[in-house]
Amino acid sequence: MFLSPQGTREFFDLAVVVDVLRATTTLLFAVCSGAREIIPAVSVAHARRLKSALENKSPLLCGERNGRRIPGFDLGNSPLEYSPEMVRGRVLIYASTNGSVAMNFAQTIAKVVVLASLRNLSAVVRYIRKTKPESLVVVCSGRDGLPSLEDTYCAGLLLSRLGKTEFLNDECYFAVGLPRFFGENTLSVMENSYHGRYLSETLGFVEDIKLASQLDVDDIVPFIEDGRVVV
Amino acid sequence: MFLSPQGTREFFDLAVVVDVLRATTTLLFAVCSGAREIIPAVSVAHARRLKSALENKSPLLCGERNGRRIPGFDLGNSPLEYSPEMVRGRVLIYASTNGSVAMNFAQTIAKVVVLASLRNLSAVVRYIRKTKPESLVVVCSGRDGLPSLEDTYCAGLLLSRLGKTEFLNDECYFAVGLPRFFGENTLSVMENSYHGRYLSETLGFVEDIKLASQLDVDDIVPFIEDGRVVV
Repeated sequence: MFLSPQGTREFFDLAVVVDVLRATTTLLFAVCSGAREIIPAVSVAHARRLKSALENKSPLLCGERNGRRIPGFDLGNSPLEYSPEMVRGRVLIYASTNGSVAMNFAQTIAKVVVLASLRNLSAVVRYIRKTKPESLVVVCSGRDGLPSLEDTYCAGLLLSRLGKTEFLNDECYFAVGLPRFFGENTLSVMENSYHGRYLSETLGFVEDIKLASQLDVDDIVPFIEDGRVVV
Repeated sequence: MFLSPQGTREFFDLAVVVDVLRATTTLLFAVCSGAREIIPAVSVAHARRLKSALENKSPLLCGERNGRRIPGFDLGNSPLEYSPEMVRGRVLIYASTNGSVAMNFAQTIAKVVVLASLRNLSAVVRYIRKTKPESLVVVCSGRDGLPSLEDTYCAGLLLSRLGKTEFLNDECYFAVGLPRFFGENTLSVMENSYHGRYLSETLGFVEDIKLASQLDVDDIVPFIEDGRVVV
């Protein structure tokens, strides 16, 4: 398990990418609202190149820097922007600071990649129980290469629900300790996290924090296949 | 709080350096055994330069790389080596891979620096309660720039005992979650940590692990003053 995207020499059956605030939460909204496909880009320049290459599909450019919509982009990174009116049937090119980078990284280290947030956690747990991958890695997106409280908490809740109590990796213990501290008070996790405070107090995305903290409300597991998020 | 030594632009009243396996544990043994002073070096080359400069004091060269005694050095990094027969009244120059680096780093970011391990944790808690520093940072030595389970656990137990439950820094929550997971089963922490397994299974330092996991047995708080560990 990695608390932020980083190098590994291993290859896994399954990678679970987590970016609670906000990429994997927001893309769940996009998928639920009927987006046709979502292409995670590693940078703003990459997103613009993808848009040029896919011009015939009229893709929407989506994403943020410092939590704010990128100038010239169609959508930012608030789940509320990803309504059916806006995204149904559309191709989305999505560049966030950490989440879309982690999604690209995860594709290089695992056969199958799924997206998890608190909203679809029980669905991801059910998927893992059903498919029984031989090896599993959780890739937390973190913040600029540092681990984040909300992603690590989400990973810990996933590992706890899978019934795991022994791990080969020190970071897994950091994760499983957090649900012991916070219980399922997910809103408290958001309110105490550095990025949660930045989003709500500095940028005013209070509603986003509430939506991201809703546990087990979406029964959907988005996959990444051939560089595209699909259901 | 830092899970591994790293840059900060802040300055603190008090820094608590933690390297449970093994620097702060081992130096506690050195201090209890009557070492006159201990100079933490940032590298093997630094240690050798210090030895030349202090030749008139006949210093002992101490430290490890990959857990093993450095060739040509007098002592390695096992607490068992730091007996009164060996170190009483002596000047020690000490170069470990992570701990002595963290000790040097801590001196650059705080007015007062103390060393904590599980063995002297309650003494450190009492010292903090008594002196009431306005700002406190815990510097975990970690492992090659990565956080380690045993140091983060020790930091978490310290913060818990200080009665703190709200923090500005995400990493503090990783720390305080760990005592909720492990309780005071400190030996289990060591046996599950990456470095604990390396030391006991690969290098055979089983006794070191046991000594490092003894909680609240030494009533001593070592300080670093003018680059030297003293009591």
